[in-house]
Amino acid sequence: MAELASALGEAPEFDAAFRGMFAELLAWRRDVRHFRPDLAPDEATLAHLFHLAALAPSVGNCQPTRFVRVDDDARRASVRANFEAANREALSAYAGERAGLYARLKLAGLSDAPIQLAVFCNEATEQGHGLGARTMPETRRYSTVCALHTFWLAARAYGLGVGWVSILDSGVIAEALNVPRAWTFIAYLCVGFPLEEHIIPELERVGWQRREPHRVLRR
Amino acid sequence: MAELASALGEAPEFDAAFRGMFAELLAWRRDVRHFRPDLAPDEATLAHLFHLAALAPSVGNCQPTRFVRVDDDARRASVRANFEAANREALSAYAGERAGLYARLKLAGLSDAPIQLAVFCNEATEQGHGLGARTMPETRRYSTVCALHTFWLAARAYGLGVGWVSILDSGVIAEALNVPRAWTFIAYLCVGFPLEEHIIPELERVGWQRREPHRVLRR
Repeated sequence: MAELASALGEAPEFDAAFRGMFAELLAWRRDVRHFRPDLAPDEATLAHLFHLAALAPSVGNCQPTRFVRVDDDARRASVRANFEAANREALSAYAGERAGLYARLKLAGLSDAPIQLAVFCNEATEQGHGLGARTMPETRRYSTVCALHTFWLAARAYGLGVGWVSILDSGVIAEALNVPRAWTFIAYLCVGFPLEEHIIPELERVGWQRREPHRVLRR
Repeated sequence: MAELASALGEAPEFDAAFRGMFAELLAWRRDVRHFRPDLAPDEATLAHLFHLAALAPSVGNCQPTRFVRVDDDARRASVRANFEAANREALSAYAGERAGLYARLKLAGLSDAPIQLAVFCNEATEQGHGLGARTMPETRRYSTVCALHTFWLAARAYGLGVGWVSILDSGVIAEALNVPRAWTFIAYLCVGFPLEEHIIPELERVGWQRREPHRVLRR
């Protein structure tokens, strides 16, 4: 993986061509739940993605993100079982047509994704000396979200798909993975090569929820 | 602002040149606290940045992000006063050399930033029909973080700097800006053209906290 061309020099110019491709990256990033079973990302690419994720903003520069790579079959099975239980419970909250639609959704690639990452925030980190997190301690968790979002975008640039699974019980996951108590579970990411590329989100394609623009208020 | 070249076609190829420039973008994105007083971003650029931010991932495609553009002088003064009070309190938590260092930090560009955005998450949105947010309702807030992080990266590509102010009392900000009760305050963003470009974070340059790589555990 190449070092930064600009490392000790001037900021590079982000020209119209780059801006256009960056917009494409944002538009084609998808929450992926269908992975190719025959192909896994190589270790050098993964290491580079972790490196890029560490460039994400973090409050007080505290970099609280802890990635846990879940390889063990028994641990993966625990995560899958927890997802299935939480998903059944979620289904019970819907009725009629929407329940039928929910039941047919594929909401996670837990069975196929070659790489699975549990992402935690170390709430007790002393890095950053508490700066910026006294009034809003949740900004540590938000910093972790910026790191995993950076990982996601970078992964897409390398042809990889990421799916964020949130239909999980945080406490069960933290216990199954045996992480320190001060670590808050933020997300479980399925990573691999997607079976198909789409510009339209899967939830929009199947009629669950279409995209809406953000509203901007003035005050 | 150009439409996507690929809108109804094939996914574009993100080649080595793009990947390299994207890494530069991540590396040169800074938390900016020093803004040019003489220059403001134009409205078309801002509208495009809001459009790009809406491409960020959101749980169940619920797009809960609400940007509030704060233009009114009195409201800006309230935010500044709240920052100053919270910052004095934060300073009182440090002692000795670190207190001296903290007191000299410039932690916000609230006096100079031409564009100021309060970012909220509408916790009560019905968009997305609750999908994915039953077990982890905090994923709505995390979705808003992804949206503002997207705004930030896109802004950098257009030569703009963003600074995230978190030394604020959420309740006071929500009241000062008169937003609905169900909206949770996530971040206050200062936006404008930076006075200087740096690859090293300001907190590292002044000796507060240097960058560290992310640790990846195996389980």
